[in-house]
Amino acid sequence: MTEDSAPHSKSYNIDFQPVGRRIRIKESEDLLTAARNAGIQLISVCGGVGSCENCRIRHVSGTLSPPTKEEEKVFDIEELLEGYRLACQARPLSDVKIEIPLSSLTASQRLQIEGHEISIEPEPVVVPVEVELTPPTFDDLRADVTRIKQVLETLGVPSPMIGFSVLENLSDQLRAQGWNSRLALRGNEVVAVLHPEELLLGLAVDIGTTKLAAYLIDLSSGNTLAKTGDMNPQISYGEDVVSRIAYTNTNKDGRQVLQEKVVSRLNSMLDKLIYEAQVSREQIVDAVVVGNTAMHHLFVGLPVRQLGEAPYVPEVSDSLDVPPQSVGLALSDGAYVHLPPIIAGYVGADHVAMLLATEVVEQDKSVIALDIGTNTEISLITGSRVICCSCASGPAFEGAHIRDGMRAAPGAIERVQIQGQEVRVYTVMGQPAVGICGSGILDAISQMLNEGLIDHRGGLQEDHPLIQRKNDELIFLVVPASESGNDRDVIVTRKDVNEIQLAKGAIRAGIEVLLGEAKLNYEEVEEVIVAGAFGTYLDIRSAIRIGMFPDFPHAKYQQVGNAAGMGAKQMLISSERRRAAEEIARKVEYLELTTYPNFTDVFMKAMIF
Amino acid sequence: MTEDSAPHSKSYNIDFQPVGRRIRIKESEDLLTAARNAGIQLISVCGGVGSCENCRIRHVSGTLSPPTKEEEKVFDIEELLEGYRLACQARPLSDVKIEIPLSSLTASQRLQIEGHEISIEPEPVVVPVEVELTPPTFDDLRADVTRIKQVLETLGVPSPMIGFSVLENLSDQLRAQGWNSRLALRGNEVVAVLHPEELLLGLAVDIGTTKLAAYLIDLSSGNTLAKTGDMNPQISYGEDVVSRIAYTNTNKDGRQVLQEKVVSRLNSMLDKLIYEAQVSREQIVDAVVVGNTAMHHLFVGLPVRQLGEAPYVPEVSDSLDVPPQSVGLALSDGAYVHLPPIIAGYVGADHVAMLLATEVVEQDKSVIALDIGTNTEISLITGSRVICCSCASGPAFEGAHIRDGMRAAPGAIERVQIQGQEVRVYTVMGQPAVGICGSGILDAISQMLNEGLIDHRGGLQEDHPLIQRKNDELIFLVVPASESGNDRDVIVTRKDVNEIQLAKGAIRAGIEVLLGEAKLNYEEVEEVIVAGAFGTYLDIRSAIRIGMFPDFPHAKYQQVGNAAGMGAKQMLISSERRRAAEEIARKVEYLELTTYPNFTDVFMKAMIF
Repeated sequence: MTEDSAPHSKSYNIDFQPVGRRIRIKESEDLLTAARNAGIQLISVCGGVGSCENCRIRHVSGTLSPPTKEEEKVFDIEELLEGYRLACQARPLSDVKIEIPLSSLTASQRLQIEGHEISIEPEPVVVPVEVELTPPTFDDLRADVTRIKQVLETLGVPSPMIGFSVLENLSDQLRAQGWNSRLALRGNEVVAVLHPEELLLGLAVDIGTTKLAAYLIDLSSGNTLAKTGDMNPQISYGEDVVSRIAYTNTNKDGRQVLQEKVVSRLNSMLDKLIYEAQVSREQIVDAVVVGNTAMHHLFVGLPVRQLGEAPYVPEVSDSLDVPPQSVGLALSDGAYVHLPPIIAGYVGADHVAMLLATEVVEQDKSVIALDIGTNTEISLITGSRVICCSCASGPAFEGAHIRDGMRAAPGAIERVQIQGQEVRVYTVMGQPAVGICGSGILDAISQMLNEGLIDHRGGLQEDHPLIQRKNDELIFLVVPASESGNDRDVIVTRKDVNEIQLAKGAIRAGIEVLLGEAKLNYEEVEEVIVAGAFGTYLDIRSAIRIGMFPDFPHAKYQQVGNAAGMGAKQMLISSERRRAAEEIARKVEYLELTTYPNFTDVFMKAMIF
Repeated sequence: MTEDSAPHSKSYNIDFQPVGRRIRIKESEDLLTAARNAGIQLISVCGGVGSCENCRIRHVSGTLSPPTKEEEKVFDIEELLEGYRLACQARPLSDVKIEIPLSSLTASQRLQIEGHEISIEPEPVVVPVEVELTPPTFDDLRADVTRIKQVLETLGVPSPMIGFSVLENLSDQLRAQGWNSRLALRGNEVVAVLHPEELLLGLAVDIGTTKLAAYLIDLSSGNTLAKTGDMNPQISYGEDVVSRIAYTNTNKDGRQVLQEKVVSRLNSMLDKLIYEAQVSREQIVDAVVVGNTAMHHLFVGLPVRQLGEAPYVPEVSDSLDVPPQSVGLALSDGAYVHLPPIIAGYVGADHVAMLLATEVVEQDKSVIALDIGTNTEISLITGSRVICCSCASGPAFEGAHIRDGMRAAPGAIERVQIQGQEVRVYTVMGQPAVGICGSGILDAISQMLNEGLIDHRGGLQEDHPLIQRKNDELIFLVVPASESGNDRDVIVTRKDVNEIQLAKGAIRAGIEVLLGEAKLNYEEVEEVIVAGAFGTYLDIRSAIRIGMFPDFPHAKYQQVGNAAGMGAKQMLISSERRRAAEEIARKVEYLELTTYPNFTDVFMKAMIF
């Protein structure tokens, strides 16, 4: 769409504000690439072809290439005059100064790392064993490893072995520790040789498509010593799993790039946890990592092409225990990273972890448990059955594909109230509004419905005083430019309403199909468990009002936060919970919606308010 | 010993001949370093302190730093005038031209890769299994791995699993192969997914302190498809295991350097084998590597410090199966490298492999089996016992520490005959004599003894017409400069005789101690098996004549070549032989000579001719 550069192209300085980063790039490179190279996490769903409208920037000074047709579609004349551009479309023609709106950044968002904890008796997979070894003499020439094995045998460990990675420094370690050590034992395998006073620790990780959460746990007490959250840096290569799979299909080293990105971010998080808890890396002798199937495969370095092509099967669904070196995670050398089993190509180990943490499978109730995200996984637990499906609910609830949508960063509108002609908004951190996040748009639409701004088909009602016409389009002005944090109107368009209809329709259709499959009616549902970050912040009444959930007359709602992370923690400190997860994965019946009879009809109906 | 350079030192061109390599170095750097950086493998036992006299070079033109005290000890005035220097001592003061004598090079030597083969019924650890899988559909959403596991279960494989490294490309491979594959199965683990017509291959390796041997084997037939030998490049960092251990103790990354050196050379050899046999790397699904304990530890990347300190214990003596990635060997990703068990710090898996290949432990005979090298391992098999020891025989038999000693490279004298006053020599490849190798010096001393040039204590007999005086020293002139290939006399000195006395005394003492321990007399020994390269070329009569071996009246002698390599091949194609090796290692009683009562007396006596 732009002419390619001459072989000896010029290069220019790009000054990104307010983040304050500078980088020099060639005139043939676009500003999205420049921002990425400068370490700035701009949102880009479409992968840089100008169709997702997320990588908005404002041109402050200097000269840029002229706006492309894609940009002319996205921005009106007024916005173009104000300097708004798409980073992926604009190239520098001189040194330039660029302003990045908060809503275009993937970083510094509110991260959901808390979840409802259920206390579990610690019974970790890796346990400490104190040993006092006799040093070798000319009368006792046994190898160091033989010494350890024989002591373990006397302690009742059958066929003890020493992990290969532990051997790398074993002889020097034993001598430095004066032959008194605390061994970290995983079954019959020694995975670390520690000083006698060192605690055994574990790492629990939830790899979300958008967010990462990590917890450092004392394996003997089950206590969380430190926790941290961060963005999944893969987001710069595609906002949802489908676009990341596409990235690996079209880029030779794409899989490796995405793997390294997420592991390197996890290692930074780990550094932070280690520093905060004042422990040593060698103490981290176990890890549990959960994520959806694509995140799981990309983390481990497995092919994902087949996840993107019908019938969308995972390469492996069984649980895995992999050496940290093979994925690049900087734990104790001999540790293993446990990855719980997967249910299907679009129902991953994170859903298993959620079902585990909420203990719904073990209960004798009819429960719907769902984790809302770009993909929403829903399980219906009833009698002895667990039926599960995955809905392509899209990224609208994460603020994408919404005209003024953004993530739940400071200044994002998260609650909307309409009373008569007065509109009140609440923003994240109380900052002046710059956009609207998932729970905000859900709230807005529920209120619009209540107050008659839209009808049951989603059409904006021209005669309502709060509905205005802007550039020949009907809109609901939520916050006028004069009151916003970025001198732009925050509005809701017909297209926005449509996006939410598609998203809520997908979830509702999934619920309806599961209820139909189990022959259960609304009255029989006793509990609805809503997990995930968006699920924590959404207003349940609004969700029912717009029809995302049926109005179950007897259901108790629970918003459980990052239940996947909690499940990972449970599997870290308890081998019984690890076995329970295997049991859950085996028990779940996966139901493929795309080939389910009459699914389209159900979905069409579910889109109506 | 030389003044250190100024901070901004000059640099000069060094022209090495006849190899024809040029390199630019700083004037502060010595020529040994320069040669190494230029990829020239100069022999250096002492690690560059001027005491081993191996890195001799000749200065042809330009200016070098003046000879050091060390060099004045090594060379006489005549030699210094001819330009002889030690590369480790000399630094350039201008551009210089340097000649490297053949005898200073570790490369291009005769390599011993042949051994007596004993035919073994192939019963490999890794076997082929043909599978025809059904592709996934919306009605059959099983993961790829589940498909393979279930087919293997129907074929009777219990709890089948897929190696983690195999997962990296599995989905793409299965689809590319149209769901018809030949699996390489190791027990219950799939280690490779091949095309249905591809043969399963294995690699057998013998890592000697000096030489490397590698064999590419068809696992189903046991046939050797290709074989190759090369030098162990670690030799540039010390000629024997003790100096290599010292190198790792004094250099921070020393262990890693030595590991990478040997693995990178093995990978080059592997490339050659793959090219020669016209196969693919993915077909190499198993490997067996043998070597002495230090070579074993350095190959795997284990600590060796404790091998150099009393009581000299290995870190691990049990057999190991390690992923090729963890050592850097470029086999099929999912393969394992099998390292058979070790007997002691100075009796390694190569000795186990030798005992295995020669089948001596399984026989009902009294046998002495020994592998002569810098360390000589000796086993005495009698009744149900196998007693074993290690003798520090030193590198004299490899030509080191001998005035004109060299390895068995072209021009090395390997046989000497003295008849009256006539001396005849035979050289490797019939080239003009440039030095004398191990079997040559052994022969020479045996002949000197026969003809009365030396007495039973090793003293040179001044009155014998073949004994001359040179620079106040008695010598035996083997080849005069006029007939040599390098215009230098090839001589034997009193010191040379002394070195051989030490070496043969160590071996003889080991044999005597073992016989004493087993209460066996000379008459009862039925067989003597001599393994290793030097053992192949030595003249048994000469060895008996100088008293290296007792004159067993009823013993049959067998020179079996690289039996360690043959043992590795057997373990590669037969799981029964792998188990037999475990049995041998368990059975062997190791006897530590250094603390054996009266060892010193036995050794002193053994040094006499």
